[in-house]
Order: sequence, then structure tokens, then C-alpha cells
Amino acid sequence: MRDVAIIGVGMNKKWGELWEMSMRDIFVEAALNAIDNAGVDHIDSMYVGCMSGGLFTGQEHVGAVMADYLGQCPVPATRVESACASGGAAVRAGFMEVASGMSDIVLVSGVEKMNDVSGDEATYALATASDQEWEAFSGVTFPGLYAMMAVAHMHKYGTTIEQLAAVAVKNHANGAMNPRAQYPMKITVDTVLNSVLVADPLHILDCSPITDGAAAAILCPAGRAKQLAKNGAPVKILASTQASDTIAYHSRSDLTSIESTVRAAAAAYKMANKKPDQIDTFEVHDCFTIAELMVMEALGLSEKGKSGPAVQAGQTAIGGRTPINTSGGLKSKGHPVGATGVAQIVEVVEQLRGDSGPRQVKNAKVGLTQNMGGTGASSVVHILEVM
Amino acid sequence: MRDVAIIGVGMNKKWGELWEMSMRDIFVEAALNAIDNAGVDHIDSMYVGCMSGGLFTGQEHVGAVMADYLGQCPVPATRVESACASGGAAVRAGFMEVASGMSDIVLVSGVEKMNDVSGDEATYALATASDQEWEAFSGVTFPGLYAMMAVAHMHKYGTTIEQLAAVAVKNHANGAMNPRAQYPMKITVDTVLNSVLVADPLHILDCSPITDGAAAAILCPAGRAKQLAKNGAPVKILASTQASDTIAYHSRSDLTSIESTVRAAAAAYKMANKKPDQIDTFEVHDCFTIAELMVMEALGLSEKGKSGPAVQAGQTAIGGRTPINTSGGLKSKGHPVGATGVAQIVEVVEQLRGDSGPRQVKNAKVGLTQNMGGTGASSVVHILEVM
Repeated sequence: MRDVAIIGVGMNKKWGELWEMSMRDIFVEAALNAIDNAGVDHIDSMYVGCMSGGLFTGQEHVGAVMADYLGQCPVPATRVESACASGGAAVRAGFMEVASGMSDIVLVSGVEKMNDVSGDEATYALATASDQEWEAFSGVTFPGLYAMMAVAHMHKYGTTIEQLAAVAVKNHANGAMNPRAQYPMKITVDTVLNSVLVADPLHILDCSPITDGAAAAILCPAGRAKQLAKNGAPVKILASTQASDTIAYHSRSDLTSIESTVRAAAAAYKMANKKPDQIDTFEVHDCFTIAELMVMEALGLSEKGKSGPAVQAGQTAIGGRTPINTSGGLKSKGHPVGATGVAQIVEVVEQLRGDSGPRQVKNAKVGLTQNMGGTGASSVVHILEVM
Repeated sequence: MRDVAIIGVGMNKKWGELWEMSMRDIFVEAALNAIDNAGVDHIDSMYVGCMSGGLFTGQEHVGAVMADYLGQCPVPATRVESACASGGAAVRAGFMEVASGMSDIVLVSGVEKMNDVSGDEATYALATASDQEWEAFSGVTFPGLYAMMAVAHMHKYGTTIEQLAAVAVKNHANGAMNPRAQYPMKITVDTVLNSVLVADPLHILDCSPITDGAAAAILCPAGRAKQLAKNGAPVKILASTQASDTIAYHSRSDLTSIESTVRAAAAAYKMANKKPDQIDTFEVHDCFTIAELMVMEALGLSEKGKSGPAVQAGQTAIGGRTPINTSGGLKSKGHPVGATGVAQIVEVVEQLRGDSGPRQVKNAKVGLTQNMGGTGASSVVHILEVM
């Protein structure tokens, strides 16, 4: 298997409600930024993570559309979907294409245009990431599912709503330093607890928003990375792993553990030959505040049930022992579902290059991304190291 | 790049209107048949081609659902989408995963459950494979698009409706010998020409049907294939290629050529080191009869404009020089859009193993599959050889 490196990354100037742009416009802006950042004069192949082009925009065949509007026909262009882990899965597909020797320069990307449908339609579209026959059909939505996860965690470990809120406060503090973030305002624990209750115990400020956005990265063989990279150090992909779990939340043997992340992370640590304490920065899937707590435990960054106090103690802040979501995370930066997994890669690459400005983690050399779909039926983990 | 082989294939007992089965049931039947045919005791990873789980069934996150109901959690499970070429793209993704060394035993599959929505809804869902902003939004549907292709071909080359009908007659003759086919009835040129006109010049018997169905195959490193394969000769994947073209049909420089297939086929012949006349059997994407004619020309099986007379002369019948769609093709076997590209692989593997019964091509050793999405914005080509 050939070693693979990232030589360029890009996003939209700003994520949010991009009324003036269509899905293809959003994609092209991010992809061109990645191509410019890499400084390559062509690509050999491309992948696009997208959760539901069909339900959000009436457009499937997303790979071909994006290849066309990026001016890249006739390169192979394929869409990859694993719900909110679509972006991570697209990165992994590109990783394997380069690792196999099939292609040298591969664009991996993600896009979602979520604001062109009504709130009800968006809620329906997102619910297709759950078990249609046993969850969505019965009317459950994602805030409801993650609220159940929060209640289970509170019941078993004594996690509090203040600890949930502390995740949001930290991520918005980080996002306030990220010009691309959709909601870059600082908030307090009181702001969260006084915001409208969406699904008890989750307030609206425990939830990630509906976002239009895209992100992209350029991959190449690690052996060619230093020669090719024009605008920043190349970053090697030490590990690219993925795992699945039951589609329905009610089928899990432990309602307080995200087993797909536990397994993907264990495989990633082994593949990269790294331990959690050798990793300097983390981007994880905080679709709801409870998710970040459960993911901390799944990644081995805290003991089971101790993630809430760890966040309150500042362990995961910039400057803490294990900084998490320096970008602002899904919570503040936004969550265009198919793009999120790639945007995590963008943030970590910029951190490892020392390009993160006011939110820079000092001496960051190794980073990890964790992207998941549904209530954790899919997880994708990447570990990156600056070359 | 490691060589990759297919050691097992499977489909549903019969494709068609499978009212008593949900999408996951349909998938599991085909996948278990492939696993049983291979005789493997586990898989390391899986891909599911599916065009629009969201619009047809309200279920995205299709990879994870299928891993769960196949009892394969926690293996990585990813859905791949390239419209009607989703199945071919899923095979190619699995090919690269094995070729890279990431995994050894990979299930590649495709599924679509199309009959649980109304005809109007299905027409809308299929139209999402075209350019949403410039084609679908204006009301064009796929029969309309392929009718335009037929008119362009007739105008330029003198192709006739009788030649189009000859494709349907041949494919139904083959499908009549395929117990899995949705419409296994024999028809005549008159049956086609007297059937209802859908979009002039295409009659309903020029069109592939709406189908529920799935197909699957098991891949492994070629070096382990003979040891692993329990129920038939392994088949090596000599080439796996893909190309894109403009999403909108009106953007093409030549309305009578499927350039993505021209390019994918040229790359496949080179990768496999085979010429068209060294290939014994072909499965191609006859979503409409005109498609099969244009694909013959793109694959180099006929001169430009000569494909119609070649079909009438029997060149593509079983026993002809270049047998096409021995399975019955999309026309007679059915076209569950995400599954079609994998079912083509199933048919060719069975042909190369000598397992095709009354529709067996004599001494078939090398076969080719061509799967496309939209009006040809995506094409995937595989060349296979029995080991």
C-alpha cells in the first residue's frame, strides 16, 4: 500500500445560509480553493461526499455534476454516502485510490446544500440517516435520538446539562476565531440553558445548525508530496479507518457508547502506531453536545463517564491537554452534512501546518478526525502527521 | 497494485415488483447468495451501489443499514452513487480497496427498491440523474432525453425504429432463458412498434422497466482466489475504469456519441491489454434500445452509425460475433438502477464459468461490462477473465 499525503485544502469563504449559491457553486468554490492551495495543474479522479442531494436539492449523480462544473470531465467522479460521515468516507475512498496506485492526484470533497428546503423537509431528509423502518417511520428525529443518548449518559454517569453546555461554550469560543464559521458568536452556559428546549435535555444551542457548505482536499502519493505541494507542508495520512454499528439506536448493547468509533479509533491508532496522548489536536463529530462527550470516551480521551468534567476543566480547550474542535466544530462552524468530514481534515491540516492564526494549537504535529453518521452506525477516523 | 478476483456472485431469485420485500430484504437475499457462492466465512468490508435510497424509500445511510441486516457490523460499509452507474462504481471502489491492500475480502453490491413510490415519484427520482438546474427543472425526463439521442442518431446515420426494436427483440429472447428476469417474454419487432409510444421514437418496449432488485459479488486478492473459491472458477478483474462527461445532454459536442464510455473503454482495453475482438461476451447498459446501439459504437463493436444493421444481422445475439446482454439486459432482466452494474458482473462471471445454461456463450473466457449513469455523464467499464 502506497503512503498517501494531503497537499492542499480548501473551503468556502464562509459557511451558512448561502442563498445566492446553488449546490454546484458551493462545491466549486471549495474545490478550486483546494486545487489552488495544492498548486496542482490537474486531478486524476475525484470523490464527493454528499448525504442527500436527492432530498435537499433534487440532484443525485452528484459526482458527475461536480466534475462537470469544476471543468474536470472526463475524470472519474463518484459520490460517496454514509449519512453525516459521507465526507470522511469520501476521504477514505480517495485514500485507497491513491494507495492502490490507480491514481496519483485525487480530489476528495464533500458538499451539502440544506437551506433550499423547508425545516420540515430538512428534518425528514436528515432522519433518513436513521433506521427508516423502525425509527424514522415512527416519527423519531435526530434531536430526539441524541436526547435519548444524553438521558442514557446522564442516568448512568451523572452527566449534567451544564457539562453538555460546556461543550457548546468551548466550541463557540473556538468558532468565534474562525472566519468561516456560520455562528461565530461567543456564548455562556446560561445562554445555552436559557435557549429553547428542542428535545429534553437538549436546547437549541446543544444542536448543530442547518448549513450550506463544502470542503475539499487534494491527495497524492506521499513520495511525491514535497515536490508537488506549493503552498504549505504536506500532511501524511497515517491512518484511514471506518466501522459500522446497528442502524437503529435501540439495537445497541450499550446506549452510552459509540462502538463504531471505538472500533474505528482502535484500528486507526494501530494503523498509525500512535496513542491518544501522542496526538496534538482533534476534530470530532459534535452534531449535538452529547455526541462530543461520548466521542471523547470512544477515542480514549477520557474515562467512561468522565468526559463532562474533563470539558469543564478545560482539557479540550485550545491550550488544554487534548484540544477538540478548534474550528468551532459542527456546533459553531456549521454542519453541511456531506461536507463535515472533509472540513475536519481541512482544519487539522491547517493546524499541522501552523496556519490556524488565533486558534493555533502550539507545536501541533499530529491530528485526528472523527466523523460519524446517524447515531453512530458509521464512523470514520483519520490520523494525520505533518511531513 | 494487487491483482483482484471475483470468487462469488449472487442475485435475487427473481427481479421485478417485489411487494413482499423491503429494500433491506432484497439486498440481504442477493448478498447471502454471493457469500454462499464464494463460500467465505467472513467479509472485511462492503460497498453498496444505490442511486436514490432517499427518494425511493426514505432511507439514506444505505451502507450501514445493509451491513446491519446482513449481520456484518462492525465492517466498514459505504454506499456509492453514480446514478444508474452506482453498481459499477461500487464494484470499482471494492476493486481499489482490495488492490490497495487495505482489505482482503470485500462484498460489492447494488440495490434499488423502486416500486414503493408512484410512477410520477419514480420518474422524478430518476430525473435527478440528469442536470437538475437545466434539464429536470424544465420538465425533461429520461425517456425524453433518450428519445432525443435516438432522433440525433437517426438523423445523422439513418438508424431506423426497426433497428431499435431489434435490440429489444434480441434482449427479450435472451431474457426468456433467464429465470431471474422481470420480463422474460419473447417479443417481435411488431410487438415493439405496436406498443404505446412513450417519447417519439421510443415505444414502451424500447424502455427498461421499473424494478426492485439487488446483486452482489465477493472480491479477494487474485493470489488467494483459487484457494478461497468454493463454488466455481475465480474470475480476474483485468480492468476497472470510469470516466465522466457533462451532466447535461445538450452540452455534448457530439449528440450521437457516449464519450464517457469511449474513454472508459479505451482505458479498460489498455489496462487489460485486450482488444474488442478478444472479448467473448458483453453486458451493456441498454436502459433504452438506442443506448445499446450507441454503446456498441463507443466500445468499438461497430463502426459509427453501423450498430443498427449489425444487430439486425445477428452480430450481438448469442452465437453471434459479439454477444451482448445474454442476461436479457436492463430491457428484459429489469433495471433496479443501483443494482444493474453489479448484476452485469454476475452475468459475465457466470458466463465465464460456463454456468449460464441455455444462454451460455460457447468457450467464453473474457467478458466486458459497461454501466452508465444519466445520459452518459458517468460510465464504468470492467473487463473480466476466468482464471
